[in-house]
Amino acid sequence: MINFQAAPEQYKHWKLTTAGPVATLAMDVQEDQTLAAGYKLKLNSYDLGVDIELADAIQRIRFEHPEVRAVVITSLKPRIFCAGANIYMLGTSSHAFKVNFCKFTNETRCALEDDSNHSGRRYIAALNGTASGGGYELAIACDEIYLVDDGNSAVSLPEVPLLGVLPGTGGLTRLVDKRKIRRDRADVFATLAEGLKGKRAKEWGLIDDTFATSRFEESIAKRVSEVTKADSQSQAAGISLTPLLFEATADTRTYKYVSVNFNREKRYANLTMHGPESNQPTTAAEIQKLGDAYWPLQAYRELDDLLLHMRVNEPEIGLVCLRTEGKIDDVLAVDRVLVAERANWLVREIVLYMARVLRRLDLTAKSFFALIEPGSCFAGNLLELALAADRSYMLNSPDAGVELATSELNAGALPMSNGLSRLQSRFLATPGRLEEIFGLDRSFAAEAAEELGLVTFVPDDLDWEDEIRVAIEERTSLSPDALTGMEASLRFAGQESMDTKIFGRLTAWQNWIFQRPNAVGPRGALTNYGKPTQSQFDYKRT
Amino acid sequence: MINFQAAPEQYKHWKLTTAGPVATLAMDVQEDQTLAAGYKLKLNSYDLGVDIELADAIQRIRFEHPEVRAVVITSLKPRIFCAGANIYMLGTSSHAFKVNFCKFTNETRCALEDDSNHSGRRYIAALNGTASGGGYELAIACDEIYLVDDGNSAVSLPEVPLLGVLPGTGGLTRLVDKRKIRRDRADVFATLAEGLKGKRAKEWGLIDDTFATSRFEESIAKRVSEVTKADSQSQAAGISLTPLLFEATADTRTYKYVSVNFNREKRYANLTMHGPESNQPTTAAEIQKLGDAYWPLQAYRELDDLLLHMRVNEPEIGLVCLRTEGKIDDVLAVDRVLVAERANWLVREIVLYMARVLRRLDLTAKSFFALIEPGSCFAGNLLELALAADRSYMLNSPDAGVELATSELNAGALPMSNGLSRLQSRFLATPGRLEEIFGLDRSFAAEAAEELGLVTFVPDDLDWEDEIRVAIEERTSLSPDALTGMEASLRFAGQESMDTKIFGRLTAWQNWIFQRPNAVGPRGALTNYGKPTQSQFDYKRT
Repeated sequence: MINFQAAPEQYKHWKLTTAGPVATLAMDVQEDQTLAAGYKLKLNSYDLGVDIELADAIQRIRFEHPEVRAVVITSLKPRIFCAGANIYMLGTSSHAFKVNFCKFTNETRCALEDDSNHSGRRYIAALNGTASGGGYELAIACDEIYLVDDGNSAVSLPEVPLLGVLPGTGGLTRLVDKRKIRRDRADVFATLAEGLKGKRAKEWGLIDDTFATSRFEESIAKRVSEVTKADSQSQAAGISLTPLLFEATADTRTYKYVSVNFNREKRYANLTMHGPESNQPTTAAEIQKLGDAYWPLQAYRELDDLLLHMRVNEPEIGLVCLRTEGKIDDVLAVDRVLVAERANWLVREIVLYMARVLRRLDLTAKSFFALIEPGSCFAGNLLELALAADRSYMLNSPDAGVELATSELNAGALPMSNGLSRLQSRFLATPGRLEEIFGLDRSFAAEAAEELGLVTFVPDDLDWEDEIRVAIEERTSLSPDALTGMEASLRFAGQESMDTKIFGRLTAWQNWIFQRPNAVGPRGALTNYGKPTQSQFDYKRT
Repeated sequence: MINFQAAPEQYKHWKLTTAGPVATLAMDVQEDQTLAAGYKLKLNSYDLGVDIELADAIQRIRFEHPEVRAVVITSLKPRIFCAGANIYMLGTSSHAFKVNFCKFTNETRCALEDDSNHSGRRYIAALNGTASGGGYELAIACDEIYLVDDGNSAVSLPEVPLLGVLPGTGGLTRLVDKRKIRRDRADVFATLAEGLKGKRAKEWGLIDDTFATSRFEESIAKRVSEVTKADSQSQAAGISLTPLLFEATADTRTYKYVSVNFNREKRYANLTMHGPESNQPTTAAEIQKLGDAYWPLQAYRELDDLLLHMRVNEPEIGLVCLRTEGKIDDVLAVDRVLVAERANWLVREIVLYMARVLRRLDLTAKSFFALIEPGSCFAGNLLELALAADRSYMLNSPDAGVELATSELNAGALPMSNGLSRLQSRFLATPGRLEEIFGLDRSFAAEAAEELGLVTFVPDDLDWEDEIRVAIEERTSLSPDALTGMEASLRFAGQESMDTKIFGRLTAWQNWIFQRPNAVGPRGALTNYGKPTQSQFDYKRT
């Protein structure tokens, strides 16, 4: 079972140090500390374990070190920054694991960019040696890239020429959409196994500058100092992210606010998210004092951990029924505080994090049904769960007091990967509906919710059990692959962004290639990399 | 060998009739007239042969019947509009054929929408019976959808529940992005094998209206009459699209303006497009008189036919070297006439068609290198070939007079699928470069072209042969699948559109699913459809 929790004192592969406004995240991958057997992490190559630490480090910088304004990502190994995802790990992994591995590493890089875009921290890739494949893809997720000019070090994306697969962590999309490198140059670069060294790489826009070995450290320090001087210093003290505690049995996993039980035989899970207690903080100062025990932070951290757990460790669970329990007023009270205190750094980080967790749900290859029943609290931020679900069922029972409610957080603070709110994406045909819903400013019982288009179905007491049972049975009987492709197409209506291009277009092509004999067959390039046997292609273009 | 040319008098499956401003395109698929053995086209299901006729019909309406303002698409079979792509055909086809089949049918539906969007013809789907799968996808490509209310007929997308694959012809994307149906309803609809009948289908936005059997024909006629009355009548007479003539040998195919030779051993082709003669028409009246012998129309029709031929009949050709031959001034003269006469219906249709052919090239899963040599004429519309190529090589020989030139047609009249011109897409990083290039208003020799970023490499006489030879050898040695995924990612920088979502996101997922054992394995749903054996899934979510 893969554990997605990490903490700096237990990092095996990264050193996170901070000095005032500067954090340094240095990669020093331990060859033998792999997540699975059968490969060695040479040359700062990585597996999922390495990336779990990286994701944790970026998250901790945001919450524990708000004073940090610049993050330097570099390597402690001489002459090598990072060789990318470990090829032997990929070669020996199942298709499903490869796909989930790439999804997580993509989310980590998007989270890094989310920090840069929304919290203004500047990420500086200090490439003290060659950055190839995923190593360069990590660099290109940063705001600035500097490469040592030692006559040898290069940046490269050798996946296509060496492995017969794509750079799987957003590299191609970021080349042309983020750094806006000309597509013909991107074509040359992505087919050139040895990559490009400093001068040419700079000319083509692949890096921002190159410095001689003797001047490298000093030049990075100078650039960092420019960044931190230009930025206003934060006097805020961070909060600690403490380990998430949960109890697990064979069929359950129970955190404080989030719990799940698995019906393995029927291939679905019941996930319940509990709303906040009534005595939540009402000011930023109180939130800061409460730290990671504050409901929105703790509940969404638990949900995040559970989503990752289910993706990788519960592959046969195809459907997740989402429920909430609690008081609508308590959720709305939390949302009001989050909105009122949004200028506070911690509140901003919490809301940005909630948005990332909800995006993780959007990107999870499982079906989600929201079940809105008596005692539920699908309100404000928790309403997003119902809106993120593939469909929702709300009990239509006038006496049961089942309601939904909106808050200001539904109006754009928790955007999907495409930049739209879930309500915007839902009402592309009738954008006026948003004003109507927010104008009404109240909670909605089943019939009103159905009329407004907020829920899919509103069965009554008599029908409820049968309808849910049949819906679950039908969903879990369908082809899991067709559902994954269908959900990936239906969930992202409207505009696309760099993120959705990475998770939609690029990832779908990579998943296709990850199935092709030319990559993973006995004569495929990925299978045969580093072996005495040669890859041999079926050259038919498809 | 599959032939992509068709003509109404030879149609087997469609009846195209026109009456003043109304065309009727009626589907009457002949079960036994299949393109391959092993299946029967029951219930108006289709194979590639049926769709080649449909594409031809839409094209002919545009050129041969400019007076048509409304096109009614219906069926001559009782109680069935169209059952979609033939499942047994899909089940017995190779992966590569399935992918290319879907690409062509997608292009056909995009061409229909292109006619509606740019030439204002209104497409009315008159569903006189059930439209399922590709049948409903054809309807949803139309502007308006009317379904007979006979107590039985429905619209449906049964691919996910019945076949374990996606609706492969843009259905999912058009549901949420064109008709902007709520994603939860789209989710229900796309998992409901039997689909929805009139009332519910209308309520959910899947159709525009439903009429009782007795009133169906009259209601369609009424709607058609509203459309044609609202539109200004065109008095223009059409031109004939005559059969394209070519000579073929084992290794060549030679049309009047386009020729290709295949180096099969080395897996590449040399494609040469000849520029116009000097005595081209200078007015719309002269163009009308010349008809389909007018260079832009004939040359691009030839290119279109050749691209389709190479996709399906030459799968092992992985790289196409694009060359042009002719005089830059002659190409620019044609472009000036096309711009000056753009208000003319025929000129508009010709330019829109050139744009579609160039988009077909963008979407072709082969690498393209443009080779810009002495005697070439990469100017104006032909410059788009170099810009569409994955990279370009221009001979840098001051004495050889090799030049490129821009025309007004490069400024947006020939857009890519994402709506950007190829120059816009190329210069996302430096949008000012466009003004600079158009401001200079002249032709560019190699060094100037390189400086402006119009070409990738400018080898001199000494290096040219070796550099091209090595580039070809390297390209054709790479994994064809990785190249397809890479090119699909790099060619479409910048914004996405419904079309690019269909060809990028949706198609890539479908291609992935088309490889999955749950669809095409011995126990897969596609393989076992209609057989006494049951499909059996590996339920792991990926």
